[in-house]
Amino acid sequence: MSRTVVSSATREVVIGFDRPFCIIGERINPTGRKILMEELRAGDYSRVEADAVAQVEAGAHMLDVNAGVPLADEPKILADCIELVQSLVDVPLSIDSSIVAALEAGLSVYRGKPLLNSVTGEEERLEAVLPLVKKYGCAVVAISNDESGISEDPDVRFEVARKIVRRAADYGIPKEDIVVDPLVMPIGAINRAGRQVFHILNRLRDELGVNSTCGASNIGFGLPNRPGLNAAFLGMAACSGMTSAIMNPLHSHEVDAVMAADVMNGNDPDCRRWLKKFRDPAAESESRRGREGRRRRRA
Amino acid sequence: MSRTVVSSATREVVIGFDRPFCIIGERINPTGRKILMEELRAGDYSRVEADAVAQVEAGAHMLDVNAGVPLADEPKILADCIELVQSLVDVPLSIDSSIVAALEAGLSVYRGKPLLNSVTGEEERLEAVLPLVKKYGCAVVAISNDESGISEDPDVRFEVARKIVRRAADYGIPKEDIVVDPLVMPIGAINRAGRQVFHILNRLRDELGVNSTCGASNIGFGLPNRPGLNAAFLGMAACSGMTSAIMNPLHSHEVDAVMAADVMNGNDPDCRRWLKKFRDPAAESESRRGREGRRRRRA
Repeated sequence: MSRTVVSSATREVVIGFDRPFCIIGERINPTGRKILMEELRAGDYSRVEADAVAQVEAGAHMLDVNAGVPLADEPKILADCIELVQSLVDVPLSIDSSIVAALEAGLSVYRGKPLLNSVTGEEERLEAVLPLVKKYGCAVVAISNDESGISEDPDVRFEVARKIVRRAADYGIPKEDIVVDPLVMPIGAINRAGRQVFHILNRLRDELGVNSTCGASNIGFGLPNRPGLNAAFLGMAACSGMTSAIMNPLHSHEVDAVMAADVMNGNDPDCRRWLKKFRDPAAESESRRGREGRRRRRA
Repeated sequence: MSRTVVSSATREVVIGFDRPFCIIGERINPTGRKILMEELRAGDYSRVEADAVAQVEAGAHMLDVNAGVPLADEPKILADCIELVQSLVDVPLSIDSSIVAALEAGLSVYRGKPLLNSVTGEEERLEAVLPLVKKYGCAVVAISNDESGISEDPDVRFEVARKIVRRAADYGIPKEDIVVDPLVMPIGAINRAGRQVFHILNRLRDELGVNSTCGASNIGFGLPNRPGLNAAFLGMAACSGMTSAIMNPLHSHEVDAVMAADVMNGNDPDCRRWLKKFRDPAAESESRRGREGRRRRRA
């Protein structure tokens, strides 16, 4: 089974079918965050610092870093953010931009092996991004759309993913370094969006044997009780073969769902992580007192 | 795709892959409920009445009725309970007993087409229960164990299910009337219990094309935060092909997980049931006031 290895200067994370689901923190991204966008534009990175620390404390295994500020010097801002975040936390990062020059600026300052986010099936993008992946020896998110857009036919999206894997191989990039994003559409608009993704994930696991990720919170867009929908989606996606997600680690309902999915998939040996998080401390100290009491009585 | 139709005197429920997940209320069962057991033994059915009404109000589509009181007249108690519950609520019932005479007593008073719980792959049980299923034209839960016990090999459990389907066919019972229980083991003891069940469910759906059910709350036995584990299990099982579960409809976390799984599986058209339950009434009345305001201004 494919194992995607990413790293910071000091820590390695392995994404794989037999590994705990990899939570990639989504918060460092100005899209839809007006205040963060203005701060980044003004060179104020204090919110980036706070978001980095809070997400890792909440359980993120990796962080996505995006500095998409229109009409600003995105390569510089992204490189600054990457350096800053790497100075604060030791999890591996996903370097996220639609601008190739910004991806390269991020790569040039990164210490370790990052995840590059992203390449698509579009010719121009393939030719611009894959050489970078090869040059820096990083892993890459492969989004399953191309010039024709995002197909509603999951088998077409699967074929786009297969094309990217093949093209990457031409550049000498192994499939272990490719993490496919099958594209999650809002289920309020497209009722089959869930089944589409589960079907693609099954094929990615069983036929291509590649790891996968997605922007999980898209699924519930426009619907009430999004945490409930996101949690169900994450478990079902993990059951279908998804091995990571770009998500909000501050949403405990969703993190718990991912941890429960690890238990269900047999990827939390002896339920150790689950027990560590949820074992009742009161009951624990009670039973410890009981053991100590018995010891005293025996003594 | 198989559709299992069950009914009360006045209401029909269809279990199927393209239907909302069928919630079968588990509460009317004295196993592990000492007070209920003593009450049933003494002929006091007040708790059965309350449990029946509460579970249907909480969203159960069917109710399981079990009257397993050791050394009591179980056939009479079960038949009494069935008649009582049918007088109070209109959902179809699952008649649940390990004693064949009790199953027949329940069948003899039931109005509609119930689910009989259960037959196994054991010869003696097959020969005792299948003729009842044929005689009363009911549906039946088929548990995937036999004389050799419960195999840890999911493919062996699948073969037991296949055997029961074939034997039922010999009696003229169509596979649409069989709902397979793949047997859910505690994941705290058997870390692969989840994957085992998901694998069997995939095969039941893709190869046998039969509906399925289980005692869902077994999965988290002995572990903390059972509702979190049960919720994840239910979504993942629904993703793997499970179409019903015997579960506690009073646990809202688990019911919400099942409803979210229906949305994800495309079995809640236009998310209508989800919206009905979770749409914010304040936002709704706000938007209604807005519409009315616009109407007034136009008038």
